[in-house]
Amino acid sequence: MQQITKSLVQQVIRPRTQESHKGNFGRVLTIGGNQNFGGAIIMSASAAVYSGAGLVTCATAPQNFVSLHARLPEAMVVDYQDEKKLAELIPQMDVIVIGPGLGTDATALAVLKFVFAQVRPQQNLIIDGSAITLVAQEKLALPQAQIIFTPHQMEWQRLSGIPVTQQTPTKNQAIQQKLAATVIVKSHRTEIYLPDSTIMWQNPVGSAAMATGGMGDCLTGILAGFLAQFSADRAQTILAAVYTHSAISDQLAQKQYVTLPTQIIAALPKYMAEMAS
Amino acid sequence: MQQITKSLVQQVIRPRTQESHKGNFGRVLTIGGNQNFGGAIIMSASAAVYSGAGLVTCATAPQNFVSLHARLPEAMVVDYQDEKKLAELIPQMDVIVIGPGLGTDATALAVLKFVFAQVRPQQNLIIDGSAITLVAQEKLALPQAQIIFTPHQMEWQRLSGIPVTQQTPTKNQAIQQKLAATVIVKSHRTEIYLPDSTIMWQNPVGSAAMATGGMGDCLTGILAGFLAQFSADRAQTILAAVYTHSAISDQLAQKQYVTLPTQIIAALPKYMAEMAS
Amino acid sequence: MQQITKSLVQQVIRPRTQESHKGNFGRVLTIGGNQNFGGAIIMSASAAVYSGAGLVTCATAPQNFVSLHARLPEAMVVDYQDEKKLAELIPQMDVIVIGPGLGTDATALAVLKFVFAQVRPQQNLIIDGSAITLVAQEKLALPQAQIIFTPHQMEWQRLSGIPVTQQTPTKNQAIQQKLAATVIVKSHRTEIYLPDSTIMWQNPVGSAAMATGGMGDCLTGILAGFLAQFSADRAQTILAAVYTHSAISDQLAQKQYVTLPTQIIAALPKYMAEMAS
Amino acid sequence: MQQITKSLVQQVIRPRTQESHKGNFGRVLTIGGNQNFGGAIIMSASAAVYSGAGLVTCATAPQNFVSLHARLPEAMVVDYQDEKKLAELIPQMDVIVIGPGLGTDATALAVLKFVFAQVRPQQNLIIDGSAITLVAQEKLALPQAQIIFTPHQMEWQRLSGIPVTQQTPTKNQAIQQKLAATVIVKSHRTEIYLPDSTIMWQNPVGSAAMATGGMGDCLTGILAGFLAQFSADRAQTILAAVYTHSAISDQLAQKQYVTLPTQIIAALPKYMAEMAS
Repeated sequence: MQQITKSLVQQVIRPRTQESHKGNFGRVLTIGGNQNFGGAIIMSASAAVYSGAGLVTCATAPQNFVSLHARLPEAMVVDYQDEKKLAELIPQMDVIVIGPGLGTDATALAVLKFVFAQVRPQQNLIIDGSAITLVAQEKLALPQAQIIFTPHQMEWQRLSGIPVTQQTPTKNQAIQQKLAATVIVKSHRTEIYLPDSTIMWQNPVGSAAMATGGMGDCLTGILAGFLAQFSADRAQTILAAVYTHSAISDQLAQKQYVTLPTQIIAALPKYMAEMAS
Repeated sequence: MQQITKSLVQQVIRPRTQESHKGNFGRVLTIGGNQNFGGAIIMSASAAVYSGAGLVTCATAPQNFVSLHARLPEAMVVDYQDEKKLAELIPQMDVIVIGPGLGTDATALAVLKFVFAQVRPQQNLIIDGSAITLVAQEKLALPQAQIIFTPHQMEWQRLSGIPVTQQTPTKNQAIQQKLAATVIVKSHRTEIYLPDSTIMWQNPVGSAAMATGGMGDCLTGILAGFLAQFSADRAQTILAAVYTHSAISDQLAQKQYVTLPTQIIAALPKYMAEMAS
Repeated sequence: MQQITKSLVQQVIRPRTQESHKGNFGRVLTIGGNQNFGGAIIMSASAAVYSGAGLVTCATAPQNFVSLHARLPEAMVVDYQDEKKLAELIPQMDVIVIGPGLGTDATALAVLKFVFAQVRPQQNLIIDGSAITLVAQEKLALPQAQIIFTPHQMEWQRLSGIPVTQQTPTKNQAIQQKLAATVIVKSHRTEIYLPDSTIMWQNPVGSAAMATGGMGDCLTGILAGFLAQFSADRAQTILAAVYTHSAISDQLAQKQYVTLPTQIIAALPKYMAEMAS
Repeated sequence: MQQITKSLVQQVIRPRTQESHKGNFGRVLTIGGNQNFGGAIIMSASAAVYSGAGLVTCATAPQNFVSLHARLPEAMVVDYQDEKKLAELIPQMDVIVIGPGLGTDATALAVLKFVFAQVRPQQNLIIDGSAITLVAQEKLALPQAQIIFTPHQMEWQRLSGIPVTQQTPTKNQAIQQKLAATVIVKSHRTEIYLPDSTIMWQNPVGSAAMATGGMGDCLTGILAGFLAQFSADRAQTILAAVYTHSAISDQLAQKQYVTLPTQIIAALPKYMAEMAS
């Protein structure tokens, strides 16, 4: 296992070229948030905005439009069951996140299947939370796309078939290679398995101050924001996002017992400026 | 009467074991908030999240979903009249709070009775505000559970039958022993009566800067968060929560005339870090 | 004209008696906010909470419930057309504010008339904004209550019949005495006319940084909060509220070009602590 | 191309005359925000309020009322399809913004046409975003008003017919002169073309930290706030608004990788105080 380093993060988060506009920093679509789990997709979209994605749209249940805008007027909203609008939006995207707060009911499955049918091979597709559970339960065929799974250990058990207690790097990698996707297994020391590479990566930062609801939703947005805007090697960009998420918590945890996802989101612009300077 | 000490708090709020995840810090369900009193349950849920509960769900009137998410995307929401979903959720919980902003109408009574029927013996059940009034008015039989009542003096009069002016420690304890529950009688110097103990406790901190609406709702969330996550003796955990609530106000009151519940909530992570270090 | 002094404010804002609870700091009901002007009553209620009122309820159009709770979970809400609930609530109140964002249509008039019919002689009734216009237009008889009018100069013209350019202290006072109410004529140097006194008061603080929408709504909440909680002479309490509103703006204006009502509200607890110490 | 200077900004943002009230600082109406793009008009209205406009009303889809008030109780709201109310409001306005989040569907077109029919010759009319696209697509005749277009380069291509790669100052000015309007072409170095002047202006400040969604919406509100309140030459006022928007970002970007529109809005009162002192 190789450790992600701060120096790698500094290579990814580079000062922005001055001759640029929001179109240069990518388009992100975050999909999720049913009527019970709306906060999850609000946090995912917020993390994408605060990490610097050029344009962020949030596809969610209409009940979540108002709370999202009350927190994040920078994002646009669309009904996640409006297939006509989604079909127009998806081809314009650089990164699609699906899963935070999506749930596992028939609506969720229909949205997931529709996205799988629409996504394009060159697009980044981050599959998180209940979307992972649905892929496993329904044995969905994965679409042609640049897929990143972000399971916690129990979700990884569902997807990989490996019981939590037997999730060794070697076993994890074997399944990940079959999936032909990036897999980020979240835990105390998150592990990252990349396609086209035999090197396995571990995140050396983060602490139990992050053990609180919504932390994974926040990570999906940082991953999306980083993939949308950075020109570094894709693998490095993913690793830098994982590290950044935890490193910000570590900074906050110097003065906080628990570090909430919304606090990490708010701290993104400052941390990223430190890395870029 | 024994005084709660800061040193007791420091024994309860311990640094988190690094090898942990949100599942280790418990699940909390806060139930309340009708169409008129939604703010109460928002504050209860917020205090649970900011004190470090692993996962928090808020069961409330659907009219409160948006305002809750606008303030607290970290929590999940569910309609408090959706008995099917509540019946699924309740068994998963470590702590249940019922009462903040619940009201005393037929809907409130139905929700309360349903929760009493579903709660399990090992679960913590915090009964607050209008739920206390309902228990007294309707002479409800208490369920088998680890019950904590958090009445102010008038609510305690309703529940205990002891007029406010006659609420002496001895009389209070006599009724509390019959209830076989923890009783926290809130006042200028809050008193705590614990089951399986003859020691009566008093909270030595706090001030009149706390005499403002919603303060008790905030306490329920801190109690829930503490009980959900800490491995200390249950009695000590309860005492530490009461002290923490007031001690934060005391810190803020050095520069504030009144300390609002939402300000105490925001200050939880920092105060708890000071105690744990 | 006598100038309000900081020393008078310091006599009103006294340290709270420790043996007290929220019931000692009064109950406030703010009534207003139609579907277009909801922000006004949100600010009035917020100022009442942040200035330390014990319990605050906001009667408004139901469309404003969510935005109010998203900003201010400390307050309770009630439909301002629900006469049954208003009739229950009004007798419990120490201070009633009516007018911010109320509008002047038939609904507004009906709400105003209902409140005038329900208010009791000993209660403080702050009549602001469109409620002043309605009183003037509809030539409404004033109820028996401790009435405070808070007109700006044009509203005062409507109520008093004195054109803005002719509003001299002597003329203002003559009409105010007929109204047998406190009148606060808001302007660059706000003037206060008190019943049972021939002394006219002027507010020496404040600046053009306050010349922005919603500033008067904010004042109504501070007046309400002060009258609800302070035991000083009623006239002094009113004067202290007017001064406090402007003095906070002056502090903020050292670093701000404009000082928004929501910023003044947020600064209330700190300013009041300075005065009380 | 002449560069806007900080000294010009300091000449525009002058200390406020003390003998003034909110009526002296103008009335602004921001129109936009359909059910998908509500955040845009929230940011426009917020920037108008925080830059010091006397009174701000936001005409938008009713779905956005709650999120707007949750963020900005200082503004009033009106349904942008309520032609009766709009017809009453428009004549009272000093500045009208139309376009942020308006969309390009039939509703948007109807709103735009109605505003074009109602606006008066002496009023400032800022045409932004999708309203520019609609003007170009539908070849709408411009109304008699003090028009300011705020296109980004692609919108300018639509309006002017000049492909982005061929947008030279000389060509831009030729079309702008035909439009007889102010044109602000937003880019890395925003260019301003003024009517009644052959001098072309360039904004020397700002950076790629501004390359994020909603930045243009924010600019419309600052333009509106400045035009509503400042007595300087109209051309200078426009130039000062463009500079201020970017200069605030430059201050924030010393510590932030990306500077979000809502952060720039929050910083307006402080920056403007620095300029005025």
